[in-house]
Amino acid sequence: MKAPESMVKLIEQLRKLPGVGPKTAGRMALHILQMDPETVAGLAEAMVNAKELIRPCPVCFNYTDEDLCWVCKDESRDKSTICVVEGAEGVLALERMGEYRGLYHVLGGNISPMNGKGPDDVRLRELLERLKESRVNEVILATDPDVEGEATALYIARLIGDSGIRVTRLARGLPVGGDLEYADEVTLMRAMEGRRKL
Amino acid sequence: MKAPESMVKLIEQLRKLPGVGPKTAGRMALHILQMDPETVAGLAEAMVNAKELIRPCPVCFNYTDEDLCWVCKDESRDKSTICVVEGAEGVLALERMGEYRGLYHVLGGNISPMNGKGPDDVRLRELLERLKESRVNEVILATDPDVEGEATALYIARLIGDSGIRVTRLARGLPVGGDLEYADEVTLMRAMEGRRKL
Repeated sequence: MKAPESMVKLIEQLRKLPGVGPKTAGRMALHILQMDPETVAGLAEAMVNAKELIRPCPVCFNYTDEDLCWVCKDESRDKSTICVVEGAEGVLALERMGEYRGLYHVLGGNISPMNGKGPDDVRLRELLERLKESRVNEVILATDPDVEGEATALYIARLIGDSGIRVTRLARGLPVGGDLEYADEVTLMRAMEGRRKL
Repeated sequence: MKAPESMVKLIEQLRKLPGVGPKTAGRMALHILQMDPETVAGLAEAMVNAKELIRPCPVCFNYTDEDLCWVCKDESRDKSTICVVEGAEGVLALERMGEYRGLYHVLGGNISPMNGKGPDDVRLRELLERLKESRVNEVILATDPDVEGEATALYIARLIGDSGIRVTRLARGLPVGGDLEYADEVTLMRAMEGRRKL
């Protein structure tokens, strides 16, 4: 696109954001040009700040900009339950739900031999350490409901299976609000397997 | 959403971008945290830079970060045609097409008495000055094909109607690639009115 050079640069940069193609980037750039300078500076600053300040929590590897993440720091959380997720996005999703009161453990990926990623490439050792050091009754495996996530969950389940800790997995089934006819076969199969008496 | 404060701030700031709701902002924020620091700094800088450097071209009011915009500066452009658009986005859209070789005039809005905006609220005087000072043969009215855009085009057409300059308006009709059955009645009517012999 022909445009002032600083605008072309801005559009190029905006395209690095997820889900932003050339058209959206152009629209965003035009919008940014119409904002007042303080707002633009604030947006730019927030990006650099977040990137600079946020690091993994030393206990659960959730995102934090303090010494511990807001979950680990919260004394009212139930320390006997650990929910294992692949990434910190998983924590944010579950926290949005607001029902879960236990702790988390962020693996930082999944076990996927097809992609050359074994058990040592995720934070499994750190999880086992935590289980040894504290009295945890239940580990909820909330890895993604895909092939790699399933494999990872199975691997972890076997690893801590005889430690006496209860190991559970999030239910698979029909997404609420979805249409039966649009559900894929595997989801339907899982929903059928997991059916409950009403 | 519960998250580190610098992340909450980033999400709030990202929501100021067009078409970015809370979920997209969250996804963008997570993406930004996974970029390397130089990329984030580059994105932030591009925003502030563009906002700082880009201003209206003193001749046509298109965006520029130099003394004149890239269209006005280009000696090979046809100076006898001026295409009038509501905003600088219009220039970018027409330049993407790449067929038009004339100049532009950015009104900076439209005439809309319903919203309290009269002829003095757009850069009409500047357009008339340009028409007086240079030998322009044709003014193409490319204001938006909505009520305000039509009204603005009609107003300008009447204003320069007896100056001997040819005043044209972009064709209305069926969008290419669209479905006949999804076209609204007014577009169909315009397409019918504007039909051409094959």
